[in-house]
Amino acid sequence: MAKTFRIEHDFLGEKEIPENAYYGVQTLRALENFNITGITNAQEPFFIKAFAYVKKAAALANRDCGVLDPTIAEAIVFACDELIAGKYQDQFLTDLIQGGAGTSVNMNVNEVIANIGLEYLGHDKGQYEYLHPNNHVNFSQSTNDTYPTAIMLCLYFKLEVYLEALSNLRKAFKRKGQEFENVLKMGRTQLQDAVPMTLGQEFNSFATTLKDDVRRLKEAQRKLTECNMGGTAIGTSINAPEEYPALCVQYLAEITGIPMVLAEDLIEASSDMGTYMHVSSMVKRNAVKISKICNDLRLLASGPRAGLNEIMLPPMQPGSSIMPGKVNPVIPEVVNQTAFYVIGADMTITMAAEAGQLQLNVMEPVIAFSLFTSLNYMTNAMNTLRTRCVDGIKANVENCQNMVMRSVGIVTSLNPILGYETSASVAKEALATGKSIHDIVVLERKLINQEKWDEIYSFQNMVHPVFINT
Amino acid sequence: MAKTFRIEHDFLGEKEIPENAYYGVQTLRALENFNITGITNAQEPFFIKAFAYVKKAAALANRDCGVLDPTIAEAIVFACDELIAGKYQDQFLTDLIQGGAGTSVNMNVNEVIANIGLEYLGHDKGQYEYLHPNNHVNFSQSTNDTYPTAIMLCLYFKLEVYLEALSNLRKAFKRKGQEFENVLKMGRTQLQDAVPMTLGQEFNSFATTLKDDVRRLKEAQRKLTECNMGGTAIGTSINAPEEYPALCVQYLAEITGIPMVLAEDLIEASSDMGTYMHVSSMVKRNAVKISKICNDLRLLASGPRAGLNEIMLPPMQPGSSIMPGKVNPVIPEVVNQTAFYVIGADMTITMAAEAGQLQLNVMEPVIAFSLFTSLNYMTNAMNTLRTRCVDGIKANVENCQNMVMRSVGIVTSLNPILGYETSASVAKEALATGKSIHDIVVLERKLINQEKWDEIYSFQNMVHPVFINT
Amino acid sequence: MAKTFRIEHDFLGEKEIPENAYYGVQTLRALENFNITGITNAQEPFFIKAFAYVKKAAALANRDCGVLDPTIAEAIVFACDELIAGKYQDQFLTDLIQGGAGTSVNMNVNEVIANIGLEYLGHDKGQYEYLHPNNHVNFSQSTNDTYPTAIMLCLYFKLEVYLEALSNLRKAFKRKGQEFENVLKMGRTQLQDAVPMTLGQEFNSFATTLKDDVRRLKEAQRKLTECNMGGTAIGTSINAPEEYPALCVQYLAEITGIPMVLAEDLIEASSDMGTYMHVSSMVKRNAVKISKICNDLRLLASGPRAGLNEIMLPPMQPGSSIMPGKVNPVIPEVVNQTAFYVIGADMTITMAAEAGQLQLNVMEPVIAFSLFTSLNYMTNAMNTLRTRCVDGIKANVENCQNMVMRSVGIVTSLNPILGYETSASVAKEALATGKSIHDIVVLERKLINQEKWDEIYSFQNMVHPVFINT
Amino acid sequence: MAKTFRIEHDFLGEKEIPENAYYGVQTLRALENFNITGITNAQEPFFIKAFAYVKKAAALANRDCGVLDPTIAEAIVFACDELIAGKYQDQFLTDLIQGGAGTSVNMNVNEVIANIGLEYLGHDKGQYEYLHPNNHVNFSQSTNDTYPTAIMLCLYFKLEVYLEALSNLRKAFKRKGQEFENVLKMGRTQLQDAVPMTLGQEFNSFATTLKDDVRRLKEAQRKLTECNMGGTAIGTSINAPEEYPALCVQYLAEITGIPMVLAEDLIEASSDMGTYMHVSSMVKRNAVKISKICNDLRLLASGPRAGLNEIMLPPMQPGSSIMPGKVNPVIPEVVNQTAFYVIGADMTITMAAEAGQLQLNVMEPVIAFSLFTSLNYMTNAMNTLRTRCVDGIKANVENCQNMVMRSVGIVTSLNPILGYETSASVAKEALATGKSIHDIVVLERKLINQEKWDEIYSFQNMVHPVFINT
Repeated sequence: MAKTFRIEHDFLGEKEIPENAYYGVQTLRALENFNITGITNAQEPFFIKAFAYVKKAAALANRDCGVLDPTIAEAIVFACDELIAGKYQDQFLTDLIQGGAGTSVNMNVNEVIANIGLEYLGHDKGQYEYLHPNNHVNFSQSTNDTYPTAIMLCLYFKLEVYLEALSNLRKAFKRKGQEFENVLKMGRTQLQDAVPMTLGQEFNSFATTLKDDVRRLKEAQRKLTECNMGGTAIGTSINAPEEYPALCVQYLAEITGIPMVLAEDLIEASSDMGTYMHVSSMVKRNAVKISKICNDLRLLASGPRAGLNEIMLPPMQPGSSIMPGKVNPVIPEVVNQTAFYVIGADMTITMAAEAGQLQLNVMEPVIAFSLFTSLNYMTNAMNTLRTRCVDGIKANVENCQNMVMRSVGIVTSLNPILGYETSASVAKEALATGKSIHDIVVLERKLINQEKWDEIYSFQNMVHPVFINT
Repeated sequence: MAKTFRIEHDFLGEKEIPENAYYGVQTLRALENFNITGITNAQEPFFIKAFAYVKKAAALANRDCGVLDPTIAEAIVFACDELIAGKYQDQFLTDLIQGGAGTSVNMNVNEVIANIGLEYLGHDKGQYEYLHPNNHVNFSQSTNDTYPTAIMLCLYFKLEVYLEALSNLRKAFKRKGQEFENVLKMGRTQLQDAVPMTLGQEFNSFATTLKDDVRRLKEAQRKLTECNMGGTAIGTSINAPEEYPALCVQYLAEITGIPMVLAEDLIEASSDMGTYMHVSSMVKRNAVKISKICNDLRLLASGPRAGLNEIMLPPMQPGSSIMPGKVNPVIPEVVNQTAFYVIGADMTITMAAEAGQLQLNVMEPVIAFSLFTSLNYMTNAMNTLRTRCVDGIKANVENCQNMVMRSVGIVTSLNPILGYETSASVAKEALATGKSIHDIVVLERKLINQEKWDEIYSFQNMVHPVFINT
Repeated sequence: MAKTFRIEHDFLGEKEIPENAYYGVQTLRALENFNITGITNAQEPFFIKAFAYVKKAAALANRDCGVLDPTIAEAIVFACDELIAGKYQDQFLTDLIQGGAGTSVNMNVNEVIANIGLEYLGHDKGQYEYLHPNNHVNFSQSTNDTYPTAIMLCLYFKLEVYLEALSNLRKAFKRKGQEFENVLKMGRTQLQDAVPMTLGQEFNSFATTLKDDVRRLKEAQRKLTECNMGGTAIGTSINAPEEYPALCVQYLAEITGIPMVLAEDLIEASSDMGTYMHVSSMVKRNAVKISKICNDLRLLASGPRAGLNEIMLPPMQPGSSIMPGKVNPVIPEVVNQTAFYVIGADMTITMAAEAGQLQLNVMEPVIAFSLFTSLNYMTNAMNTLRTRCVDGIKANVENCQNMVMRSVGIVTSLNPILGYETSASVAKEALATGKSIHDIVVLERKLINQEKWDEIYSFQNMVHPVFINT
Repeated sequence: MAKTFRIEHDFLGEKEIPENAYYGVQTLRALENFNITGITNAQEPFFIKAFAYVKKAAALANRDCGVLDPTIAEAIVFACDELIAGKYQDQFLTDLIQGGAGTSVNMNVNEVIANIGLEYLGHDKGQYEYLHPNNHVNFSQSTNDTYPTAIMLCLYFKLEVYLEALSNLRKAFKRKGQEFENVLKMGRTQLQDAVPMTLGQEFNSFATTLKDDVRRLKEAQRKLTECNMGGTAIGTSINAPEEYPALCVQYLAEITGIPMVLAEDLIEASSDMGTYMHVSSMVKRNAVKISKICNDLRLLASGPRAGLNEIMLPPMQPGSSIMPGKVNPVIPEVVNQTAFYVIGADMTITMAAEAGQLQLNVMEPVIAFSLFTSLNYMTNAMNTLRTRCVDGIKANVENCQNMVMRSVGIVTSLNPILGYETSASVAKEALATGKSIHDIVVLERKLINQEKWDEIYSFQNMVHPVFINT
């Protein structure tokens, strides 16, 4: 069966386009030019959706400014709504990492919208005299304002999903904090036994630290509402009607429900990567914290017999192809690795941001790629961590408590009574002889009596110490 | 001449301390143990000052709680005030990078304060029975709350200085933006000629982008007011009177004039590095932006005859040991390099933050080191950039304007009138033949007349384009 | 239509496996546990091939040691050969980033081989009593020796492909170096006009710098031949016959044609990430160099009228959705971005390598992921750069030459005759007045005559200067 | 007392130079221009020494080429020898991070040599008509060949010192490996108990991994012998006699004893940063490995009662200002932090290398700065680690052994006899009931008899397992 083509051209020449394709000649050139990662825009539905919102807002604003025929505007709006509804995603085949500062993505969108619109108007695909990707769909626009605006919107949507995963993870730790509130255990600093606390306090602190990240990420998300729509090529708004920028952004806010506003200096906004760096930094910060938490989970679960063994992670799979019965902390491990990916991606973003020149940053695609993948992977990692690990963690209560009472670190509570130096000498004796603090202090040296001991080393006083100095 | 010593001991044994030293045995051990960078706390006066504030607040709070003799408290306060006034800085010889999570720095401060206080009370240095580094100066405290609080305060002070340098730099760009507001020039995207703008708009955008950094850094600075004073060893407030934490932080706010508050979860705050990462990220973001600006300055000043040559940087030194008359953009170059340092330091901080374990992050000293040096270097770099480069930049007005009118990029203004494809064919002809856009459009193809041309290519319309489509 | 299942179990319980699946219960658990990147082992055919070589060598060695029934060995070898031939790739669905230090991948391979082998022996899939994934396929092995060995082999294969792309790119630059050998142009240092050279010398230097990378990468590739096969769980060779390690590696060398050898210390080799870091460093070095070259290409091609305009890159696509006729350096741009990805990936690898603990590094999967993607992306980028950019670069000969003779930098050639200070004063006058060096030196100040001038400023003397000092 | 000055000038104007200064006007401008780090060339004695070797070789080569008066050459050589002997270091006050691609450092050296030489010849400082910094000392040279060559030489010297520290550290681990060769302990993978090994094997593996680093660093060091002396400004050897480059490098080899050779392509060598990246990568690799070792040491020493407690690090200082008797692993901690610095510095170097443009990389000073500090800090860290930690490590023999026999992981040895699944069920029972493997296997299930048990679990068989399957 013969495959059919239509001929399209741009100023570099003609190309055969598969007849059923909604994209056109410029998309085809992009497909030929950019084969780096194999990861395409089709894999980022939020991005296509965001771009469609941008094009719809532009068409409505152009119509209102009287520079776009209402029928054509209607066709464009129809096409955008189709994309927003999730259709035609397979038409967005451009590699996420491309040259051209996003031109290929913008043209891909323009071409698909034009051809959907053409069919809506009763024409054939490719009859651009009726609805042209550049002259109509891209009217009053440039890649340099639509592409970053679409990225911003896409990140906004993705952060919604991310924040939900993060909040759920926070709550899971919070629940465990409550569950373990009476489990006495040794606190450790510098990996050395320090002073007592509860396992609940420890898990609760994981929740607290993530709560702060929720706040920071929401702050960063708000920054994403500043866009440069209407700046066109370099921010001077060349080729756009005077009222267009404000109108377009107003429409964008309206149809997305996100409070989009115009950046105060469109020249600056055209090349600035500050918001991306901000978002990336906060995602990295979050990844670092979660990685630290996973390190702790793996440490606390170490053993079972030659490790700390304070908690048990739910077993997810046989841990070894050779060592029977071994169950490994595979979930925290995969989360650590995801965090390392995010940290590397932040470095990529940093280099790309620094490499901008003059009125544009052509490295924006790799920034988008890095942020998209970081958010995807970490969202997955957080959900995995919660459902396949945290929710099922159990405490080894007895082991936790035993380690407290045989520790030397509990001597700290005696400082206010005995002074630092006497306490240190008790500690030294305990370490040298293997004796317990209790035996040295109460039975041998008789520095305090048993009653006092019991007061100081009550559960309540160990986890919420009251100052006792006599 | 015989050098004299006093003998001090800790639980590891005795040490000879130089008689005139205000530090003691634990500082001496640190000097022996840690010889990595050769950069000492003495080189960070804000840090010593910050630590003295912390110790003063603690002494006052302890006194009010009734756990510290008022006379001893008075002696401690006296000593702290001496340090705040900038005295005894040569007593803080500990390397900025140390093991022990800051214990050596805390003990160095405790010992110096104790000995100053002992002299104030009429005793000799080392007579710790009257005023003890641990039992009195460190009362209700741990390294794990005082050290991070002092770092936070120190960073707060340093950011004040940093923000001043940044604001001044921003203003310098703003002034140049005004000075150059009538200098027409080509805007460039992807290093290719794009559409016209003014040199003023370009410099103004540098000011805008830095204004946003001022905001972000002030946000980060505010985060530094949350401290964990009173959490002591691991955040359970062991060994501290119940009212002490709130009281201590209240004193700290009062004597520093900074609105310090207590973190909501002291367990979390003891090991959390989130605020440092936040500050570092924002300093990195700022460094990246300034590096991009310096790249632009070097590009715009390239030449003088085989480059863009749009601006002239003030000559700072002969540029070459071999090429006479060569003047190089040495100031932007040194600023770029400083930015690269800051980016590297952020990576160091990231690794250190991730390496925290359980109830403490022992890598805090290298985080402090990295933030301190980043802030120092970038502050220097920004002041250098302003006074030795930006303030003296001159525009090559004629050259800027000539490049606009002989460019092909100005064809963009004709899009709304001629359509994208016709404009593209004009551009193509211009590129192939070397002719000007004017000649092709007005004289040869007669697509518009001279009057229209003059309207479109007026200065006003090029830098603030009005939409003209007929 | 009813889907059919078979039941498999491991020590965590039973699972339903799709009847047509060659993988088994442990793979299924991995599919449930690890959903992070969506990039699976199936997308890395070299990795599956490498793993099959490892399993084949192990089976042969086990057979020769007398611990594996020859019939079973034959079935395993048959199955491995099928995988080596590229079959059954869709059975390797494990995400490249997983927890468990590769256990899931190893078990996935074991299970697929067992089931292919079972069918070969006339049994049904799942009848592991005849050929067991652990007891037979994994005999004398652990994930901790097979997984890293397979990664090493895979990297070796991938580097072959990478090196071919790199060598071809080098040759392309070399050809351009020859093509441009007579194109005189200004050399530039610090973006300022320096002294003359040829465009050929410039392109030739790109070839030279890549030649060195070829050498370094081959060195790194050789390091990949050291493996830890036979070390089993932690390098003590527990559960492996004494002669097995040497025999297995000998087989591995034989069947792959790669000179594999046994690491000298199997305990060390079990946790060491040194070779991965070495390879990553050298790939990063290469990426940095290629990024620098792309920066240069973009600079040299800047313009066309308000830039350097020394070369023209072949136009690949319309450059702008708004600026007609604009053609951008999209290919170097996509290569720059790929390099930034590689640099970020090296950071991920660094963190992962540092995070190893005790007898194993559980972060190996993200190291493999990062190296695999870096090599894939850079290989694609190098091929793209060569075929879609370098091969079609043209020189703007006249423009290059004009910039030389109107430059000030050519005064440097007069240093040995006039001294640095006189030359500097000539340069200064030229810069101040806009006059040419020739006019000042020969016509006005008469410091040398025209004959001498012609000798000094001959093409030959400018590009291969002879020392002329009288 | 009146301070006296001499007047010097360059083409930017006149400056007052302190009469006793050996540096001149160009150095003074550098001191005014560059105040970033406060770390000066005077703090890098190897760098001044290296630069003096370069200048001496150049003077000798110039003399032999007949372009430098022998008397002047003699004076230059005298001055260089003074610098090589370590004199006049306080004259090198330029900040290590500067703009100008090293010009300031080169001119600082030229000026100091000129003035020392002038005094040697009986003239006054500043009488440059007799011996001129540019016309004589810098003859046939440019910053662009002398500065990188001096950095290369300096790094070569510094690596000698570094490699000594590394070799000594390796030997220290080797000695401990021997000392602990009979200490049986649990090996751990993924922080979970795995199979037995000896503490000696563990420490020996630390030595092995560092041995490989010694090799890689020596390889990298050899790359430092390729220099671009004689390339002058951009590698075309402008202003240098034809025989000069080869002759100069020959002299350089001769007087340094280092086999210096000329790079094959001087154009390429002028801007290439490949060797620096290579060195930095290998130092980073080494730092990562040492950091991993320090992580292990801290883990193994965790406790003393609520941790692994397999080894004891020598106590270096009281560990806590609040917890008496606590002794922390402060030395590994400081080494970890140094490694993080090195990793950050590698990122700085990467960015700087990527930022080179056209015929030069102006970011070379920050590369030198980063490499110099990384090597300094890591050398210090390695010596500290060896003398203050490794040499004094003691094994907790009994605790190590107890953990083995009560572990579940020893069940692995039964795989070949019982099969993986039966072993797994034994392990599962042990974990569920707390029973020992011995009790289940020998006493209860009677799967093997006591004699077999003793054979399998002999010390010899646990650390060098022989394959036992019947």
